[in-house]
Amino acid sequence: MAAQKVLIAGVWKHSDSTKTFQSEDPKAQTVLPDHYPVSDWDECSAALDAAVSAFEVMRTLPRESIAKFLETFANRIEARSAEICEMASSETALPVEPRLASGELPRTCGQLRAAAAAARSGDWANATIDTANNIRSCLAGIGPVAVFGPNNFPLAFGSISGGDFAAAIAAGNPVIGKANSMHPGTTRILAEEAQAAAESTGMPAGTVQLIYRLDHADGEKLARDPRLAAIGYTGSRQAGLKLKTAADSVGTPIYLELSSVNPVVILPGALAERSAEIADEFSSSCLMGTGQFCTNPGIVILKSGDATDQFVAAVSEKFKNASVGTLLSKSGQDGLASALKTLQGGGAELICGDGVGGGAGYCHSNTLLKVSGAEFTKNSEALQTEAFGNASMFILCDSTEEIVNVVKSLEGNLTGCVYSHTDGSDDGDYDQIVPALRQRVGRLLNDKMPTGVAVSPAMNHGGPYPATGHAGFTAVGIPGAIPRFAMLQCFDNIRPHRLPEILTDKNPLGAWRSIDGKWTNAAI
Amino acid sequence: MAAQKVLIAGVWKHSDSTKTFQSEDPKAQTVLPDHYPVSDWDECSAALDAAVSAFEVMRTLPRESIAKFLETFANRIEARSAEICEMASSETALPVEPRLASGELPRTCGQLRAAAAAARSGDWANATIDTANNIRSCLAGIGPVAVFGPNNFPLAFGSISGGDFAAAIAAGNPVIGKANSMHPGTTRILAEEAQAAAESTGMPAGTVQLIYRLDHADGEKLARDPRLAAIGYTGSRQAGLKLKTAADSVGTPIYLELSSVNPVVILPGALAERSAEIADEFSSSCLMGTGQFCTNPGIVILKSGDATDQFVAAVSEKFKNASVGTLLSKSGQDGLASALKTLQGGGAELICGDGVGGGAGYCHSNTLLKVSGAEFTKNSEALQTEAFGNASMFILCDSTEEIVNVVKSLEGNLTGCVYSHTDGSDDGDYDQIVPALRQRVGRLLNDKMPTGVAVSPAMNHGGPYPATGHAGFTAVGIPGAIPRFAMLQCFDNIRPHRLPEILTDKNPLGAWRSIDGKWTNAAI
Repeated sequence: MAAQKVLIAGVWKHSDSTKTFQSEDPKAQTVLPDHYPVSDWDECSAALDAAVSAFEVMRTLPRESIAKFLETFANRIEARSAEICEMASSETALPVEPRLASGELPRTCGQLRAAAAAARSGDWANATIDTANNIRSCLAGIGPVAVFGPNNFPLAFGSISGGDFAAAIAAGNPVIGKANSMHPGTTRILAEEAQAAAESTGMPAGTVQLIYRLDHADGEKLARDPRLAAIGYTGSRQAGLKLKTAADSVGTPIYLELSSVNPVVILPGALAERSAEIADEFSSSCLMGTGQFCTNPGIVILKSGDATDQFVAAVSEKFKNASVGTLLSKSGQDGLASALKTLQGGGAELICGDGVGGGAGYCHSNTLLKVSGAEFTKNSEALQTEAFGNASMFILCDSTEEIVNVVKSLEGNLTGCVYSHTDGSDDGDYDQIVPALRQRVGRLLNDKMPTGVAVSPAMNHGGPYPATGHAGFTAVGIPGAIPRFAMLQCFDNIRPHRLPEILTDKNPLGAWRSIDGKWTNAAI
Repeated sequence: MAAQKVLIAGVWKHSDSTKTFQSEDPKAQTVLPDHYPVSDWDECSAALDAAVSAFEVMRTLPRESIAKFLETFANRIEARSAEICEMASSETALPVEPRLASGELPRTCGQLRAAAAAARSGDWANATIDTANNIRSCLAGIGPVAVFGPNNFPLAFGSISGGDFAAAIAAGNPVIGKANSMHPGTTRILAEEAQAAAESTGMPAGTVQLIYRLDHADGEKLARDPRLAAIGYTGSRQAGLKLKTAADSVGTPIYLELSSVNPVVILPGALAERSAEIADEFSSSCLMGTGQFCTNPGIVILKSGDATDQFVAAVSEKFKNASVGTLLSKSGQDGLASALKTLQGGGAELICGDGVGGGAGYCHSNTLLKVSGAEFTKNSEALQTEAFGNASMFILCDSTEEIVNVVKSLEGNLTGCVYSHTDGSDDGDYDQIVPALRQRVGRLLNDKMPTGVAVSPAMNHGGPYPATGHAGFTAVGIPGAIPRFAMLQCFDNIRPHRLPEILTDKNPLGAWRSIDGKWTNAAI
C-alpha cells in the first residue's frame, strides 16, 4: 500500500522517502490502515524553498486575500466536519460528541475566522505613527513558519488548522505544518481543505505545506535553517527544548508550550463555605478529556486539617466512581504511569488509583496523590513533574507561610487558581500567597478551574519558562497570538505612495492605530 | 589607592574582590587615576538577592513612585551635567560640546522622563479587557534585569541611565547595571545620582545596583541565574552571543543589539539629481562621532558608471580632507584596523585611508573601500564584517538584479536606506530592490541617512538577527522599548478589588486600553 502523499509547493506528491509509519486507534489498540512517510531532508528543503517563494508573493497580497483564505478554509472544515471528527476520534479516542464536533471543531473555525478578521483590519499590527517626525511602524509578516502541533487538540491546536497556524497565516506567513504523529490522518484531511481553500482564493503555492514526520536530526536541522523565520511548537518538554536549542543557535524566534502543573490553591474559608461544590468542580476539571489538557489542575494546595481531609476524601470518592477515560496513545499511558512513579519516588503518597487499565484501550485509573508542603519544598523538582492525564496531587501545608514556600518553589506555569471565601475572610492569606503565584503563572484565576481557555483577546495561554519559551506572549487569543510571528518594521521618511496601506494617512480599512500617543481608527 | 565602591543593596561598599582595572583617556592615551573592582561571583549573587527583594517591594508600589524616581533621576543628572560630561569626555574622547552636553545628556534625560510618563499612564502595558468573559490582561514587570551598556553612548545607552535602564525601571523592575569597562567613572557618577534619586523617592534598596566588571565566566553564570528575569545587552557580537547562549539555556529573555552595516542604496536617478548633496550627507553621517554609531552607514550600494565614479571620487575627497576623529579606545582602533583587513582580504579594494593614525590619540584615517557586486555575493560573509568607525565600503553593481542579489546576501541589519529621484524615475528599481531589503532591516528610510535615531514611539531601533536578538522589539522609543522587560499577566474572573489599577473598571489614571476590541482611555 502506497504511503499517503505529502503536500509540497502546492502539490500533493508521493514522498521521496521510503520510511513510513502508521498511527493507532488508542481505544481499539489497533494499527490504523494508512501509511505515512517519514520525510527526509531533501523534502524539508524543498518545502523551505517553496515557503520562501510563497512568502515573496504573500507580502504583496492585499490583506483581504489572507482573510478570504482563512474564511474559506473555515467553511470547508465545517462542510467536511463529519469526516474530520470521525478520523480525529479514531486517532485520538476523543469522542465525536460533544468534544470534537460540538466543541473543538467550532472553536477551530472560530479561531480561523477571528484571525481572518484581524488580518483584514490589521488591528493586530500595533500600527504607530509619529506625525511630527514622519516615522511610522507596524508589525508585519516575518517569513516561513514551521508549526509543530500537539497530540491533545487535533483540530484547535493542529499544525494545519490550529491557533499557531491561524496566527502565522494572519500575519502573512506561509506555514510548513509538521503533523503530530498521533493523528496524521486528521492533519491530512485538514491540509486538503487548506490547500483547496488556498487555491480557490488565489494564494501562492507553498502557502500551506504538510510533512508527517521527520527524524529528530532533521527536525533540528529545520529549526536551524536560515530559510525558516519562526517556529510554533506545542508538545513534550524534551523534544521542544531540543528544537529551542537549535533555533536559539541561529536567532530564530521559537514559541513553545511545554508543560504545566497548574497549581490550584484552595483557602480554608472557601472549603468551609463550599467544599462539595469545589470538589465537583475540581473533579470535573481534572477528569474531563481524561485530564489531557495543557491547563489540567495537576497540583492542589491546601492547609491541613479536618475540612481538608473531608475534601480529599470526597474527591477521592469521585475519582474512584468516575469512569476511566481512554488516553491519546500508548506513549501517553506510559508517560502518565512513569510520571506518577516519579512523584511517588519523590515522596508523594498514593490516595487512589490502581495503575494502568480500568477503562477501554490505553488508559490509567483515575489517580490522586498527596504530599506535605515540607516534603514538596525539599524535593520540588521531582514533585512538580507533570503527570499528563487523569491524575492530580494534593499538597497539604501546615501554614500560610508553607503555602508561600511551596508556591515559591514552583517553576513557571500556564495558570494558577485561588479559591477563597466570598465574604473576604481569606483575603489575608490571599494577599500573602498571590504575589509569589502571580509572577509564576500566565493566567491567574479566582474561584474557577483552569481548564476552559476562552478564545478571547484578553486571554493569556502562556506563562513563564518552562511553561512556555517566552512569558511575553500568548498562544491563544486573537489578535494577541499573532505578533509572535511578526517583525517590527519602521518606515522613516518613506514617500507616501510606498507605505503599506495600514500606515497611510487615509487608513482605508479603519485599523486601530496609535497616532501621536492616542489610539484611533480614523484617518490622519 | 582603594578601588571605587560598588553599589549593592542600596549601599556603596568596597568590593570584596581584589582584582581591579583602570580606564583610559583615549585622546591622551593615558591611564585614568581611578581603580575599579572586578567583582566576583559572591558580589553578583548578593546583587541578585537584593534585586529579588527590591522587586517584591516594587511590585506593590503605585506607578507614581516609579515615575517620580525616574524624573528625580533626570533632574539630578541635569544638576550634575558638567561633571558627568567631563568625566564621559575623558573616558571616551567624545566632545563635551556639542555631543555630550547638548546632545546625549538631554536625550538621556528626555528618555528617562518619557519612561516616567509611560510608567505613570500605563500606556505601555497593552491593557486588554473582555467584559463579556471578565478576562483582563496587561503587561507587567518581570523581575530583576541586568543591563550591559555599550561603549559608544556612555549616557543615552549607559547601563544606569540609558534606554534599557529606563525601559526596565518603567516596567517596574530593579536593574543590575554592568558598567562598560571603557567608562566606569561616568557610570559611577550616574549610579550615585540614581541611588540618591531612589532614596529620596522611597524606592527600595536594590532598585539600582552597579558592578563595574565581571570575568566572562561570571557574566555567563549571571545570565543563567534563576534569580535574573531578563537581560538587555548592547555591544560586541562575540560577547553578546555568549551571554545569549547562557540566557537561552535557561529560558531567560535577552535583548541584544549586536552589529549592523546599515546598507544605503543610491539609485541612478538620485545621483543624477543631487550627487553633491548626497555626497555631503553621506560623508557627514559616516564621519560624525568618528563613525561610532550603531547605525553608521557601512555599506553603500550603487550601479557602476561615470556618475557613480564621480560620486565616489567626491566622497573620497571629503574623507581625505576631513579631520580624523579620536576613537573610543585602543580596542576600537585595533578592531577597526582588523575589520578593514578582513574586508580587503575578502576582496575589497582600498580607495583612501592610510591605516592607524592621522589624528589625536587612538585613531584611524578616514577610510573608503570598494568591491564589485559579483565579488560581494561570492564572499558575502567576510565582506559584511562590521568596520566600526570612520570607514565605509562601496558595492558597485552592474544591474538592478545584482543589487537585489547583494541585498539578498545581507544578514539582518538595523537600518536600510534608499535614495531615489524625486520625479519617480527610480521607482522601477525601488520596487525590485525594496521587498528584499525590507525584510532584512528594522528601519527602512527614504532619502535620508540612518544616523540620528529619534526617540519616537514609532521608532524601531532593532532588526532581524544578528543585528539584534529578536526582530519584534525596539531598543529605542518609549513606550515601544518597555515591553521587552515585561511578562503578560492575565486576570480571569478576578474579584474587582484584587485587580491591578490599570485593569479596574474605573481606570483612574486614564490609561489607553483595548476594551472589547476598541481602544479607549475612558472607564468602563
